[in-house]
Amino acid sequence: MKALRWYGRKDLRYEEVSEPSPGPGEVKIKVNLAGICGTDLKEYSSGPCIINGDDAPVTIGHEFAGVVVETGKGATAFSPGDRVSGVGYWVCGECYYCKRHMYNVCSNLLFTGLHKNGCMAEYLVSPEYALYKLPDSVSDEAGSIVEPIAVAVHAVKIGKVALGDKVAIVGDGIIGLCTLLAVKAAGASEIHLVAKHKGRGERTLSMGVSTVTYLNDGDTIQKVKELSGGLGVDVAFECVGHPDTPQMTLDLIRNGGTAVIEGVFDKRGEVDFLSVMYNQKTMIGSPIYVDEASTAISLLADKTIDADTLITSVVPLADAVEEGFEKLLTNKEDNIKVLLKVAPDR
Amino acid sequence: MKALRWYGRKDLRYEEVSEPSPGPGEVKIKVNLAGICGTDLKEYSSGPCIINGDDAPVTIGHEFAGVVVETGKGATAFSPGDRVSGVGYWVCGECYYCKRHMYNVCSNLLFTGLHKNGCMAEYLVSPEYALYKLPDSVSDEAGSIVEPIAVAVHAVKIGKVALGDKVAIVGDGIIGLCTLLAVKAAGASEIHLVAKHKGRGERTLSMGVSTVTYLNDGDTIQKVKELSGGLGVDVAFECVGHPDTPQMTLDLIRNGGTAVIEGVFDKRGEVDFLSVMYNQKTMIGSPIYVDEASTAISLLADKTIDADTLITSVVPLADAVEEGFEKLLTNKEDNIKVLLKVAPDR
Amino acid sequence: MKALRWYGRKDLRYEEVSEPSPGPGEVKIKVNLAGICGTDLKEYSSGPCIINGDDAPVTIGHEFAGVVVETGKGATAFSPGDRVSGVGYWVCGECYYCKRHMYNVCSNLLFTGLHKNGCMAEYLVSPEYALYKLPDSVSDEAGSIVEPIAVAVHAVKIGKVALGDKVAIVGDGIIGLCTLLAVKAAGASEIHLVAKHKGRGERTLSMGVSTVTYLNDGDTIQKVKELSGGLGVDVAFECVGHPDTPQMTLDLIRNGGTAVIEGVFDKRGEVDFLSVMYNQKTMIGSPIYVDEASTAISLLADKTIDADTLITSVVPLADAVEEGFEKLLTNKEDNIKVLLKVAPDR
Amino acid sequence: MKALRWYGRKDLRYEEVSEPSPGPGEVKIKVNLAGICGTDLKEYSSGPCIINGDDAPVTIGHEFAGVVVETGKGATAFSPGDRVSGVGYWVCGECYYCKRHMYNVCSNLLFTGLHKNGCMAEYLVSPEYALYKLPDSVSDEAGSIVEPIAVAVHAVKIGKVALGDKVAIVGDGIIGLCTLLAVKAAGASEIHLVAKHKGRGERTLSMGVSTVTYLNDGDTIQKVKELSGGLGVDVAFECVGHPDTPQMTLDLIRNGGTAVIEGVFDKRGEVDFLSVMYNQKTMIGSPIYVDEASTAISLLADKTIDADTLITSVVPLADAVEEGFEKLLTNKEDNIKVLLKVAPDR
Repeated sequence: MKALRWYGRKDLRYEEVSEPSPGPGEVKIKVNLAGICGTDLKEYSSGPCIINGDDAPVTIGHEFAGVVVETGKGATAFSPGDRVSGVGYWVCGECYYCKRHMYNVCSNLLFTGLHKNGCMAEYLVSPEYALYKLPDSVSDEAGSIVEPIAVAVHAVKIGKVALGDKVAIVGDGIIGLCTLLAVKAAGASEIHLVAKHKGRGERTLSMGVSTVTYLNDGDTIQKVKELSGGLGVDVAFECVGHPDTPQMTLDLIRNGGTAVIEGVFDKRGEVDFLSVMYNQKTMIGSPIYVDEASTAISLLADKTIDADTLITSVVPLADAVEEGFEKLLTNKEDNIKVLLKVAPDR
Repeated sequence: MKALRWYGRKDLRYEEVSEPSPGPGEVKIKVNLAGICGTDLKEYSSGPCIINGDDAPVTIGHEFAGVVVETGKGATAFSPGDRVSGVGYWVCGECYYCKRHMYNVCSNLLFTGLHKNGCMAEYLVSPEYALYKLPDSVSDEAGSIVEPIAVAVHAVKIGKVALGDKVAIVGDGIIGLCTLLAVKAAGASEIHLVAKHKGRGERTLSMGVSTVTYLNDGDTIQKVKELSGGLGVDVAFECVGHPDTPQMTLDLIRNGGTAVIEGVFDKRGEVDFLSVMYNQKTMIGSPIYVDEASTAISLLADKTIDADTLITSVVPLADAVEEGFEKLLTNKEDNIKVLLKVAPDR
Repeated sequence: MKALRWYGRKDLRYEEVSEPSPGPGEVKIKVNLAGICGTDLKEYSSGPCIINGDDAPVTIGHEFAGVVVETGKGATAFSPGDRVSGVGYWVCGECYYCKRHMYNVCSNLLFTGLHKNGCMAEYLVSPEYALYKLPDSVSDEAGSIVEPIAVAVHAVKIGKVALGDKVAIVGDGIIGLCTLLAVKAAGASEIHLVAKHKGRGERTLSMGVSTVTYLNDGDTIQKVKELSGGLGVDVAFECVGHPDTPQMTLDLIRNGGTAVIEGVFDKRGEVDFLSVMYNQKTMIGSPIYVDEASTAISLLADKTIDADTLITSVVPLADAVEEGFEKLLTNKEDNIKVLLKVAPDR
Repeated sequence: MKALRWYGRKDLRYEEVSEPSPGPGEVKIKVNLAGICGTDLKEYSSGPCIINGDDAPVTIGHEFAGVVVETGKGATAFSPGDRVSGVGYWVCGECYYCKRHMYNVCSNLLFTGLHKNGCMAEYLVSPEYALYKLPDSVSDEAGSIVEPIAVAVHAVKIGKVALGDKVAIVGDGIIGLCTLLAVKAAGASEIHLVAKHKGRGERTLSMGVSTVTYLNDGDTIQKVKELSGGLGVDVAFECVGHPDTPQMTLDLIRNGGTAVIEGVFDKRGEVDFLSVMYNQKTMIGSPIYVDEASTAISLLADKTIDADTLITSVVPLADAVEEGFEKLLTNKEDNIKVLLKVAPDR
């Protein structure tokens, strides 16, 4: 079968590999669509980051929609023909955290498309527990963004966003935008986006955002505070991963508020601990998801979240590097979520 | 009357001032004992920190026990003769936070002994809402440490320490030690202290601590993790105020755990945001207290907390600089809480 | 001015009374529209319930939209000409609960239209803290249902409904339907209504409900469990007030789930405590609101909640008894929220 | 081996049975001491309650301390010679609740000594996950009451008792008294016991109780309210199981407070739902425990809880009926926890 494989930085190859076979508890899926995630992009442009270089080559990708074609021993929840989406974790099921349903911080976590061969290929093998059936009301296009929406739903739950809360989001990447949509779905009364790119910021005006300011506006913190009533918001989400944005996110919240960290960071950054202490502020990290993909699917099913607002193009898997990865790197204004069409005849 | 007044760094003067008079809602107290707090020490050694230099001179001190001698207009909760202790805040009662019982983050907070004349004087004037009656079972000595114990009780509540939790405390200052006692009172099953001074660390062996390690042990984080079962503790308290200790505190907690920041910081410090995010860790600041002084008094009343384990000496107010401030600066091994005897004849 | 006054059961009189004048901290409003609430209906059909009979006559009504015409001493938040809606509580501001922002359980709570003259009159006097400005995007019709939506928003927060939760609602009265809309706004993935009236049940199909069953279906509990996946829902809301519905609501939730009680009860009812204990179930009461009217207004402003789905007719205040109260009593299938037009020329 | 077996109401037989053998994941324990629980007593006096009558005869008992003598396949956490205590549940590990670490509400829960042969025998077989090593600092006597203390620790966590809370406990059975001890360990500032038996009520004066009133005092609710400051306590625990005590427990809490239900009920009882609703009160059930036995052991190890205050006698297993069950039924004043000595020569 054909697969897109990571060999090293700036070295993704579309090549022939052998088809995988499902082990016990695993399911084999014929992939229809695969999404390019910010992590994939980072591994391409400046990796290896999470990928272990010694594991190369590895088929990348962990966002997808497809159809079950074979089930491994003991995998009884799915049957061939089931339309599915899924998430990327492989968890041990035995550690302190897995026993407490905290799969997202499993002590032995592995990830599809980084440590295990991923979905930018004709066939994918996934553990059964990472798969979710797609109802008819969720298209494959929508199904292929279940994973990043699950990330956002988890962050919204970690941040305990309540009906009527004032919220700020720092970052306009796919996670920032999914968080915006999830926060809106949770009934926030105000959503203030701090964007980087004009093209993206303006696009969010149709997504329910209250105000858009920009990271390089100079006095962004003061502006957002004024726009939200003066004291700061109840909950703010850091969705950038730059060493300076967590403190900015803390500065956006009111006393007693919560800053949720979703970004992936290359290096440490500074925090004004005196302000954290004096103002009883909370900073909390939100890694991936536990079982929030089911919520993501229900939000897509009843159109609370409209996938079309995020998907900017669909290109053939064969053209992934030029039409997908490179365009996302060079033109963030116009490209948000690029899907790769894997199964051309469906 | 006599008072100890801050004129500047290393310039505390014991001198004659006029007696204060209680305004509306205020109460005048004849002070018996006053405690020297870490903040007082910092203002003496390297201030002005929180004190506004232009306000000097100001009578310092905000930990005390005394007797009510006069009540201002509308202050009906106390009568002359009542033995009282109290806390240091002056709050507006009108802001967003005060209306939500979050007096500790009042938008207009002032503090006794820093912005208002304090208790290291024969008489103190305090707002009624900052005072608490002392039962017979709480001595004046115990009453004079109600304030720092209230700080610790608030931190324990902010950290949501639950019966049976594993806890670590970073720092052996008075706030660290009070936090240790409050954590013990809340039923923690393990308390791991990371101390700075041998003299203090060893002293805590009688306070219910499980293990003591030292900040300069080299591999403190690994040691505490091993001593607590391998994964890290449920809740850890930062009680130092050094730029490096918050990250150490974060490193001591398990995935999903909470680091409570109690320290007062001169400068920013670094945080490993990637670790915070990946491991779903929480950092939360705990400023002073709301109404936890009543809990502090009840813990002292039934001897759940024994004040004698913290009080290392009682010296006359007149000798405060030499026998109190200087000894605390130069010999932290042997001096923990020094009380100043203000009313010699009681 | 003209007012609708409660003299006794089945005795509401539309008559001339003198205009009220705002006291300190109070505001005088020219009422445009007033809503008939389930409580009003109950006082009419079988009162006095909450009304103290000795206080009769009293002008009833506590749901309204209008315009500020005069402000009392110290009431500085509003100016003549401001379009406003409001809530019904008069709180003491001094008790244990008020100090903790729990105005809804104030020890000295009074209520507009029950203990104080209400809004079914040309002019209303209200405490300033119970009023909210209406933005241009909220019509007077929408503004007149802010109060019951605030009740529902509070219940959703008390029930801690999280994004993706499965929810059931028992009851199709105005509070049940407002709760349905608020639960939808909070991102529930499934909403199962247990209705009483076919006309109302069918009407909710356009409000985002997942399934509708009926109280007299016989095996309602089993049906709702099957429709929601077998275990029961995460949170269920009791919005009836019949002695049997709280236990039904408890039966609808999964182990560890929450039953929120919103109904107003004439008598006690039975609970299966063994089931509550064995299954770690929670029952919690949700009385009125604290400050959720502002969230209600923002939900109406951005059309997350569409007032038109609830308002079935608008009739002149003069015809309130025949066209409003009696129709709501005799035809619940077709009448949900009836508004009374007070100011005919606006 | 010898075992005490339940054949029916008032029919417990001390007789010879064959020794059990540990299956996969199971451990065989030589029992030293076994405690008589309220449930055991109820099965004896008026059963079958939880026991399925068709399963008789069944060896009863689920509170014990003993020594591991053999381990089944895959049971690697224990070795012969380990001193252990344990809890009574057998859980499926696969259901919705088990996956979320809510073993106490497992959909397929079975219980030692009720559905499975219990510990009132020379040997017991238990699943590995229900066993806990006893440190040297915990005697076998103390170890044999780990299970009821675990019940109480769970209830304290379910009730979210915080440092300084005011608490009431309704009931002076073993669960009521263990709850008292656990509440004290969690740092409650006031503990008000509503007892049934003078002998037990007076005994608690040495356990840290603040006040004792009696169920048949007539105006108990009013008394406890006055003793606790007037508004009611923050958290109250129902530990009786009588149809009337849950409402009494609700009446003891302040607005916004929590009533935890621990009792085992034969029949339903009435609740004043109007009061629950108006006063925003919470009722929550607390069934057994999840993993709180480890906390129970640590509380016993550092003497925060002193087992001797609960254990009133130790009698030979052969005399269990006359010296244990009958005495507990007929003289609750003097007998609280009766231990059965199973292994006479240790």
